[in-house]
Amino acid sequence: MAVTTRRVRSAIILASIVVFPAAISRGTQENPGIRGFAPAHVAAERALEQQLRAIPDPARAESNLRHITSEPHMAGTEASHRVAEWLRDQYRSYGFDADIVSYSVWLAQPREVHLELIAPDKKALATPEQPFAVDPDTSDKNIVVGFNTFSPSGDVTAPVVYVNYGMQADYRELEKLGISVDGKIAIARYGGCYRGIKTKLAEEHKALGLIIYSDPEDDGYVAGDVFPNGPWRPMTGIQRGSVEYTQIYPGDPLTPGVASTANAKRLAPADAANLPRIPTMPINSQDASVILENLGGPHVPRQWQGGLPFTYHIGPGAAVAHMKLAMDYQQRTLYDVIAKLRGTNDGEWVVLGNHHDAWVYGAVDPGSGTATMLETARAFGELVRAGWKPRRTIVMCEWDGEEPGLMGSTEWVEANRAELQAKAVAYLNTDVGVAGPNFTASATPSLKELVRDVTREVQDPRDVRSVYNVWLDRATRQQEEPSGIARPPSAKFTAPGEAPIEALGAGSDFCPFFDHAGIPALDAGFIGDYGVYHSMYDDFYWMKKFGDPTFEFHVALAKILGTLALRLDESDTLPFDYAAYAAEISRAANDLATRAAKQGIGSADVPAVSDAAARLTASAAHASQALQQWSNAPPNAAKQYEMNRDLVSVEQALLAPEGLSGRTWYKHTIYAPGTYAGYAAEVLPGANEALDRQDAGTFTRESAALGAALLRASTRLDEIARLASSTTQ
Amino acid sequence: MAVTTRRVRSAIILASIVVFPAAISRGTQENPGIRGFAPAHVAAERALEQQLRAIPDPARAESNLRHITSEPHMAGTEASHRVAEWLRDQYRSYGFDADIVSYSVWLAQPREVHLELIAPDKKALATPEQPFAVDPDTSDKNIVVGFNTFSPSGDVTAPVVYVNYGMQADYRELEKLGISVDGKIAIARYGGCYRGIKTKLAEEHKALGLIIYSDPEDDGYVAGDVFPNGPWRPMTGIQRGSVEYTQIYPGDPLTPGVASTANAKRLAPADAANLPRIPTMPINSQDASVILENLGGPHVPRQWQGGLPFTYHIGPGAAVAHMKLAMDYQQRTLYDVIAKLRGTNDGEWVVLGNHHDAWVYGAVDPGSGTATMLETARAFGELVRAGWKPRRTIVMCEWDGEEPGLMGSTEWVEANRAELQAKAVAYLNTDVGVAGPNFTASATPSLKELVRDVTREVQDPRDVRSVYNVWLDRATRQQEEPSGIARPPSAKFTAPGEAPIEALGAGSDFCPFFDHAGIPALDAGFIGDYGVYHSMYDDFYWMKKFGDPTFEFHVALAKILGTLALRLDESDTLPFDYAAYAAEISRAANDLATRAAKQGIGSADVPAVSDAAARLTASAAHASQALQQWSNAPPNAAKQYEMNRDLVSVEQALLAPEGLSGRTWYKHTIYAPGTYAGYAAEVLPGANEALDRQDAGTFTRESAALGAALLRASTRLDEIARLASSTTQ
Repeated sequence: MAVTTRRVRSAIILASIVVFPAAISRGTQENPGIRGFAPAHVAAERALEQQLRAIPDPARAESNLRHITSEPHMAGTEASHRVAEWLRDQYRSYGFDADIVSYSVWLAQPREVHLELIAPDKKALATPEQPFAVDPDTSDKNIVVGFNTFSPSGDVTAPVVYVNYGMQADYRELEKLGISVDGKIAIARYGGCYRGIKTKLAEEHKALGLIIYSDPEDDGYVAGDVFPNGPWRPMTGIQRGSVEYTQIYPGDPLTPGVASTANAKRLAPADAANLPRIPTMPINSQDASVILENLGGPHVPRQWQGGLPFTYHIGPGAAVAHMKLAMDYQQRTLYDVIAKLRGTNDGEWVVLGNHHDAWVYGAVDPGSGTATMLETARAFGELVRAGWKPRRTIVMCEWDGEEPGLMGSTEWVEANRAELQAKAVAYLNTDVGVAGPNFTASATPSLKELVRDVTREVQDPRDVRSVYNVWLDRATRQQEEPSGIARPPSAKFTAPGEAPIEALGAGSDFCPFFDHAGIPALDAGFIGDYGVYHSMYDDFYWMKKFGDPTFEFHVALAKILGTLALRLDESDTLPFDYAAYAAEISRAANDLATRAAKQGIGSADVPAVSDAAARLTASAAHASQALQQWSNAPPNAAKQYEMNRDLVSVEQALLAPEGLSGRTWYKHTIYAPGTYAGYAAEVLPGANEALDRQDAGTFTRESAALGAALLRASTRLDEIARLASSTTQ
Repeated sequence: MAVTTRRVRSAIILASIVVFPAAISRGTQENPGIRGFAPAHVAAERALEQQLRAIPDPARAESNLRHITSEPHMAGTEASHRVAEWLRDQYRSYGFDADIVSYSVWLAQPREVHLELIAPDKKALATPEQPFAVDPDTSDKNIVVGFNTFSPSGDVTAPVVYVNYGMQADYRELEKLGISVDGKIAIARYGGCYRGIKTKLAEEHKALGLIIYSDPEDDGYVAGDVFPNGPWRPMTGIQRGSVEYTQIYPGDPLTPGVASTANAKRLAPADAANLPRIPTMPINSQDASVILENLGGPHVPRQWQGGLPFTYHIGPGAAVAHMKLAMDYQQRTLYDVIAKLRGTNDGEWVVLGNHHDAWVYGAVDPGSGTATMLETARAFGELVRAGWKPRRTIVMCEWDGEEPGLMGSTEWVEANRAELQAKAVAYLNTDVGVAGPNFTASATPSLKELVRDVTREVQDPRDVRSVYNVWLDRATRQQEEPSGIARPPSAKFTAPGEAPIEALGAGSDFCPFFDHAGIPALDAGFIGDYGVYHSMYDDFYWMKKFGDPTFEFHVALAKILGTLALRLDESDTLPFDYAAYAAEISRAANDLATRAAKQGIGSADVPAVSDAAARLTASAAHASQALQQWSNAPPNAAKQYEMNRDLVSVEQALLAPEGLSGRTWYKHTIYAPGTYAGYAAEVLPGANEALDRQDAGTFTRESAALGAALLRASTRLDEIARLASSTTQ
């Protein structure tokens, strides 16, 4: 699904920049080193990378995408199975060991999606997306109607209340105005947070049902020209999408924490904590207009006014809507493709992944990522044909069922958690691979410098400069340009010399790897003016006309992913920057202490967290220093293997085995998707969300878990320092 | 005309707050003093003020407004003459000596206002405002069509280019995009600056004509419910208005600097520097929609997108428009009403004023101010009947021809400049007296504390608190509330204890008094959600339904104006705060020095300005101290008169006799309407605008004039200190 509600042109880059000495020597100016590579191995790595980057080809990326988008291929359908088989065959043709792994998950498809206004006038709504003759794909009969998967079936009739984005702050505003959604149908616009949070909040506020629509201000004509004249959402465009409460746990609702194999023990659907209880459906702005224009009540606060041509009112009033949803829930089969290129050391894996299921065609989401990954895979295959053997095993995954709730990846990670925690050194995700020309990335802090390094090696397709320099320049300009749009102080671009990389939030398949299994992860791609997210207009025509007409950004991304994978695969010492990670944690711990003090909560708990963060910082600095020497004097293979195991284990040390309060599937103490806070990552989620609820008891428990995790990580870093020093002294 | 383009609910209050000891003692806490009153006179003044504030009556304010708005009464028509006669008679009935003073000015009325789209399809535009049955006034046959007075006649056909607000920054953006209006018709939206600046800039950029429209984002349905359901502008609402280049000089275009009496020497119209040379017309958003939807070219920068339901494009493209304007220019007669209530000392005048001419009915602009002033005048009359005699003469003025360009006031000030400079102690303006519940004021800095003092004495109609406290509370909340709308750092509310008062900008009749004659001035009123500015919907129905249904804000304003006038009229020592004024000048001089240094201009000129500002600050502090003693020990009447003459003369010392470069009618060295900068005041206008143009020669000349003015003012303040000390020692 990926995060695409942000408006790219006015995106606020939440930079979390830490200036810190790199943990690993990068060589001299004349003979620059590569993070993690012994000086003796740098030249070979450079040659290998150059060889790799010469291979990806725009014509092949285009033909990959044309094939993947040749029919609608939603998860749980035979078309999705066909895509999986084709992908498996492609990987095999490149020389990978590729197989399909199946899971049986609880999944809904729509039988009936009905909406009508019954007062003040009767009008049938839930109008479908409009086909355009210029793009025959938009006329396909197999395109699924607009629906929100994991909505329950239901039949409700009630007056309507507009709740803006349907986020916590919006309900607080409603309360101030004395308006409640209790017993009403809420209508929210898309944007600001994951749609499952909108449903959860509407449910908590006792709405009978929820309608979610796409406002032209957010991704339609206010943003720019609409399809087929431009890249933005036309009036009939519908954003499909899941409302599973993935913020509680993703994957099959009936098998939390374990793989949904044929014999797995399953919950009854009524007991699944991540299933919504109120009917929810998406509509287009044309239908929303009919409802919103008929709302009574006060006119909205200025920030709630969207782009439709009338004054928005909150309601209730004359408008009464009737929603009727009949959902066909069944056990349905998902088809993951797992392709391996065995390395000399099969005990270490570099894992790459993207999903292949799409709401309709999914040219951007996820086709652009898949078309790109195939070119990266082909390049690896070519290198092998030319005599190369990977140092570590490369595992490339094509997930099914990401759209309904990160299912294919979650079930596979749950099935293979112990092996992954023993072997995987990192997980590289791409999903919305190419939606435009602007590079963006989110990552675990230890990998941020690696992403910056690698993007310096790839030329930007529209520029003589590197992807990195164009990216940095854009970020700097966005910070400097005078704008009517407010930039919160936290968005300040604190290190002018560094391109900003966000924390891993929610919304794609890195989640089970990172949040559940503690595998260092990153997500990367090119974004841009992209308003057709989860509509049938996200198709090949869109990509060819607007997103990447020459497929050169697909090629650039294939080079970036390939180079990232090669660095992780071939490095002597894994190129993880724990000093930067510790600095981010320290800052977050300071912020936590300030918040807690303000609320008068946790005065007994905070010092232990602060002390642990300080100890982590000291340990990370010490380890960095020791590693700098180590990397210049390569030790024997056994020691090296031990060191790399230790390096990977630091991230896992940050997991709390018991998980976060109220959502124990989430194990990571430093980052999690916000329970209510949108797609963005919550930092120190257990303790911070306890403060959100002013829950002192949970704060104590979560602070203790956090402090313990930081001390575990410190101990690992101390071991790394000891190992490095003992070997190099 | 008044400043109403700002959006009240999201208004950025440009606070110019200076914390400084008050120049005049305000007594002890038990027996609070009144600024400017000897302790022995405080009790009598308090009693008098209470008597006055008991008189204004909402029913009379309402019946005043109903009379004034009974027919359209544009300047230069017999209806305007009828209003003047009625006003004269009202003042006479209150006991004033009231007369009509006539001037003959060059003034246009529309004979034909024609607009059509001729490509891509033919469509007649310039559609009139739509009548609503609920408000019969909207069906009157005498309502003038939408037009911009002082546009020349013309007949042009050309492709159209959208220029956003048509301000300097917008043309810079167009230049970056490689799009020119040369040979095109420009279409700009209202807002951001005085419409005459839009025409001037379009003319300078060689547009053949200019269309100005009201965008729903700025004062229509995006802001809130539209007339007749709400106070905002409906789709057919047209903002009439002048495009005279009042930023060069206001008043009769043919008699700059002198009164337009029958025998005045007149310029040929072709030689009048304040007349536009390109046809300009206003249209409603319904017509604008037809044009804008047909523009080609790139889509607009995000900030240029307005509230119409499609993606805005810059053009040019398919849209070709044909404008034909036939303007009937003639010498036309204006009718000012001048009403005097003679004081014991007729050598000093307190002048109040508002205009009476309106584009159509003008219930808010200017009727609310006039209806209020009549109640203030009636209260003075009642006090006289009860035995009071004003200390100074009160002069109440009802101006004609403000809408076409501050004509009635400008000609009268030009006719009586010497007498005004000798006698007037202050000019109190109200124009948009009541458009809602939110008090606002702008003033010469020496009067700001007086405005705060007086608003503490009047209860807010909706509250148990004073107008001041409600005003302060609102300003504080606006600064604190989280908002998506950016607040520039300069808008920061620097003194949390003080309500913000802006500098006098442009747009109403205080301009000739303050900018040309150096009379201390202020402008005050209540603003609110008001979108029908200069349309026929600004009528009695609007006021009764939305603006002030109970007329209690009219009464509150009548009390404020009356109390302000009484304090200025009855004070022993004029209550001017020159320490605060000097502090504002110092800050502006610092900003000027910083700007000049940045541009590398004026290193030889700036020190003299800085020194003069420092000397002014010292002199003002010294004078303040001396006056504090003086006011506790009242001297004889002759000395008091001398002191007050000196106090008034400080403002006049700030005039440069030769005027500002390029617009010599403007004499004030500290404030002027910005030549290009909107309705807002330009501070230190000569020197700052020279920097805008990077014109080092002008900067030198203007800095010298400014420095000299500051030294003249210092000398006057030193005389005040000497006089105060000599008398009190």
